[in-house]
Amino acid sequence: MKSHITYLSFDELADRLCGIFQRHGCPSNVARLLAENCAAAERDGAHSHGVFRMRDYVSNLKADGWVDPAATPVIEDASPGFVRVDARNGFAVPALAGARDLGIRKARHNGAAVIAIRNSHHLGALSLDVEPFAEEGMIALSFINSSPAVVPYGGHTAVFGTNPFAFAAPRAGEPPLVFDMATSVMAHGDVQIAAREGRALEPGIGVDAEGRPTTDPAKVLDGGALLPFGAHKGAAISLMVEILCAALVGGNFSAEVDPSRHPGAVTANTGQSLLLIDPRKGRGALPDFAGRVSDIVGYVRDAGQQRLPGDRRLRHRAQSMKRGIPLGAEVLDFLDSLEAA
Amino acid sequence: MKSHITYLSFDELADRLCGIFQRHGCPSNVARLLAENCAAAERDGAHSHGVFRMRDYVSNLKADGWVDPAATPVIEDASPGFVRVDARNGFAVPALAGARDLGIRKARHNGAAVIAIRNSHHLGALSLDVEPFAEEGMIALSFINSSPAVVPYGGHTAVFGTNPFAFAAPRAGEPPLVFDMATSVMAHGDVQIAAREGRALEPGIGVDAEGRPTTDPAKVLDGGALLPFGAHKGAAISLMVEILCAALVGGNFSAEVDPSRHPGAVTANTGQSLLLIDPRKGRGALPDFAGRVSDIVGYVRDAGQQRLPGDRRLRHRAQSMKRGIPLGAEVLDFLDSLEAA
Repeated sequence: MKSHITYLSFDELADRLCGIFQRHGCPSNVARLLAENCAAAERDGAHSHGVFRMRDYVSNLKADGWVDPAATPVIEDASPGFVRVDARNGFAVPALAGARDLGIRKARHNGAAVIAIRNSHHLGALSLDVEPFAEEGMIALSFINSSPAVVPYGGHTAVFGTNPFAFAAPRAGEPPLVFDMATSVMAHGDVQIAAREGRALEPGIGVDAEGRPTTDPAKVLDGGALLPFGAHKGAAISLMVEILCAALVGGNFSAEVDPSRHPGAVTANTGQSLLLIDPRKGRGALPDFAGRVSDIVGYVRDAGQQRLPGDRRLRHRAQSMKRGIPLGAEVLDFLDSLEAA
Repeated sequence: MKSHITYLSFDELADRLCGIFQRHGCPSNVARLLAENCAAAERDGAHSHGVFRMRDYVSNLKADGWVDPAATPVIEDASPGFVRVDARNGFAVPALAGARDLGIRKARHNGAAVIAIRNSHHLGALSLDVEPFAEEGMIALSFINSSPAVVPYGGHTAVFGTNPFAFAAPRAGEPPLVFDMATSVMAHGDVQIAAREGRALEPGIGVDAEGRPTTDPAKVLDGGALLPFGAHKGAAISLMVEILCAALVGGNFSAEVDPSRHPGAVTANTGQSLLLIDPRKGRGALPDFAGRVSDIVGYVRDAGQQRLPGDRRLRHRAQSMKRGIPLGAEVLDFLDSLEAA
């Protein structure tokens, strides 16, 4: 039984992933951003968006003509509080990285700003996209749509992506409060992990290709679909995500993405939107915003919620930074295979 | 058995409610706004925020010193995309009405704007607050916190309000797409209706004063609490609502409101935030935003979701505008009693 664990530093892991991205066609700047994004998810224990996702990245990069890893995003200063980004069929992470500073400047000046990214491919953890804004003192919300994977409430056919949204806010004396969630009842990455590990899903998570309830993750992945979380409420939120990521940005709805002529394609050329708010514009004469975020977190802990959003991620991160990011032998073998592929 | 239904026009009902508000201390402009808000909820079949709520309004107005119906909101142009409103312990509806045009002008110019209202009392249907922005071509999101009524995920004590949020977007050829939802698994008003009608709740909705699960709406209302919708996800959204409605605006968290020395008090002097986005800044060269909203609504209907968010409300509204707003004899008796009280 192989259970030997190797601990890599963040830089060691990111360098290794960067080499794989470059080997599969990414220019060095894009490779570096994607590698750091993926390594950060692994560092934070967000395994469904960590090294596990490298298989999808490589498959996606090999799906000829699907994503352009060398695309140069076009960033357009549309109005005092609105940044438009055309990712030009490239990855979302470099598109957002290119727009981040302009978005922050606009939010600082105006109090509120939007970054609207279209024609972009997203495979990362959404929490990592909003966190840097909170580190700059901003409230950030972000939304992504993707490929059809979720049936509407009471519907029979997948229309929505898993359409996550994320929220981040600065917090006094601690790292920012950050959470993200799929608006499906389970993240697609977690269904893939269950399938890989041969675990059944709980009832109420997915349907098969005929729209019948199933607990088999393979049936969900093979033409089936997930249900929205929270019944009609989650479905309404998922609809809102589609509007904010397609209608608003000028891009594709999840249901308009057709990767069928690109075998191996995993991502969707859809969109991402971010809403930024500068809390310093709102606090008036009352105590500092970040201190107030700490107050509500304290109330919630006192009321008995033991694990707050983001707590697990921060604990994993602290451990990873102290002793290294743990990787099993089979994961290292897997990275070897991607380096050789 | 009394089952005679009287049909009132919107104006007839609003006039009648306006008289009750004035009788109980509201100046005529505030009485008119609250009456139209309440009549609109009844017109739209949103009964938990319709005439049923008049009992709460009157009780609240009689709770000496709790809400100031004559307060003049202070509207502050804080930055190019940020409006601060101090409702001065008055109702939220007139505070928002006073800030609406400035918010729309800011969003039109910047692409994005925030309206941050503090020290306000809200008893209306949140959908009615966002709808007028969509009628002006804006995307609007709004959030409200209130009094502690919802336990955090896995917690034992109420910390969150039912903390609803609402979304509205213009839609081609049809009224705006509008929805609101409590982030509790059920709206507080619906628990009150169940209690009044003597109906048991479904399991998984509430806990009693000792934090034990109960299906008795009276026990939920009497020191108990509701659960968040969608388990930890709904709880995270409710936490976000607290941050956007208290930390951001400079007001009270739900858990900081203490009406105990004001018998009859129903509302909370908390806050409300609105995020406005001008979709015309985002559409680029692609088709019109409102048409794209129609597209996604079409996809969702084609996939088998028979009732979209807001459909029921629009159907009720159309019927009410055609034949009048139906009110049972007992409701009219109830209004008589409020007029005499």
